[in-house]
Amino acid sequence: MPTPRAPKPRDPAKTRARILKVAIAEFAAKGYSGARTEQIARRAQSNIRMLYHYFGGKDALYVCVLEEVLSQLRREELQLDFDDAEPLDGVLQMADFIDAHFAARPELRGLLAFENLNRAQHLKRSVKIRDMASPVIALLDKLLRRGADAGVFRPGVDALHLYVAMVSLAYYSRAHAHTLSHIFQVDLLAPQWQLDHRTQTRGMLTNFLCNVEAGRGSACLTRTAASSFERPSSSVTRKRKRSNP
Amino acid sequence: MPTPRAPKPRDPAKTRARILKVAIAEFAAKGYSGARTEQIARRAQSNIRMLYHYFGGKDALYVCVLEEVLSQLRREELQLDFDDAEPLDGVLQMADFIDAHFAARPELRGLLAFENLNRAQHLKRSVKIRDMASPVIALLDKLLRRGADAGVFRPGVDALHLYVAMVSLAYYSRAHAHTLSHIFQVDLLAPQWQLDHRTQTRGMLTNFLCNVEAGRGSACLTRTAASSFERPSSSVTRKRKRSNP
Repeated sequence: MPTPRAPKPRDPAKTRARILKVAIAEFAAKGYSGARTEQIARRAQSNIRMLYHYFGGKDALYVCVLEEVLSQLRREELQLDFDDAEPLDGVLQMADFIDAHFAARPELRGLLAFENLNRAQHLKRSVKIRDMASPVIALLDKLLRRGADAGVFRPGVDALHLYVAMVSLAYYSRAHAHTLSHIFQVDLLAPQWQLDHRTQTRGMLTNFLCNVEAGRGSACLTRTAASSFERPSSSVTRKRKRSNP
Repeated sequence: MPTPRAPKPRDPAKTRARILKVAIAEFAAKGYSGARTEQIARRAQSNIRMLYHYFGGKDALYVCVLEEVLSQLRREELQLDFDDAEPLDGVLQMADFIDAHFAARPELRGLLAFENLNRAQHLKRSVKIRDMASPVIALLDKLLRRGADAGVFRPGVDALHLYVAMVSLAYYSRAHAHTLSHIFQVDLLAPQWQLDHRTQTRGMLTNFLCNVEAGRGSACLTRTAASSFERPSSSVTRKRKRSNP
């Protein structure tokens, strides 16, 4: 039987990517202090020397992990294209996108939870993360302004507040499903429960934004939302071609 | 110099309560695996022998901690009295209460986050926690039915889904303020930011519930919400007298 050994780093980019991928899973499962670089190196079929060679150490590797999962989110958010969308459709597509992203990436949820328990000590060291933040808020702000100008959205909604609400509603019922499911004896991770929750989120966003003037029936609600908010958008419009951000 | 020693446990209830209080803080800050019973005993001016005597061990102490913070929440929720409240006022008071509770108890946020990262391994052992869950959902369900029967709420809103949304909106912007504040360069924990966020939550709940029929102006929105959802309720109606649950 051949003895297992680390493959020769003929392709540094691939070795680096393999270490990073394993590190994402390890840090997401165990947090910064719980994860072990030796184990990451071994699981990535590399060795601790290579890990230090490519990343410099545990701290720097962990910052790279945070940068990687957050830039995945930002890269995909920036590919959303709402220029031709009705404002409400645009906002709902963004909400669906955030929901799908958090659903598909439990490691992002784990890393964010651990990092906040640690008061974002490591994240604060990354200038890269700070610099990639604003475009998504600008994108949402544009939709909100366009909707308000067209008289279909209530005016004055703050893009950051709305974005945080969207992420809250996408994050919490999944990240805290373990305690909630036991407490309420309902499986919150069941696909139907999550689908129903997303429908509720769409309803909350629609009715909040489209109540142009409390007490007056809103054109937006009549024309668009009544038929569209009940079903999540099956596909998200993406930019076909886009220069690298 | 006198050697430090644990005070004699003349009052077992007080000693137990002191250990529990320190344990809540320690487990909330460090999680189950990070916290040390020796340190908990020392900080509670007791000793490890007493800790084991009162709680049986680290696992049992940790389960007691979870039961304590969650029963604090349930006890207070059950003191809310909505019998004389308009349905919308009742729901908004419940939302404000949840918001205030999560604002005032960072240790509850920390314990829930750690416990979910650990897949609720310990919480699942507690029958007590499961048994105290349903009353709050029943309370909300009653409000939703009353509102729907009176024609001021959309029918068919699920109490558990709405409760989870309320907790999501109260939890996330605080528990994840460390990462969000760095990413967006805005202090999410600033009192004004949190107040604005609560106003948005109230607006989302109001417009969602009171849109009795999409496309038709709702009586509830005209009469109640337009004037009330902008400002959080300053005080919450509580039952004046209530037999212990």
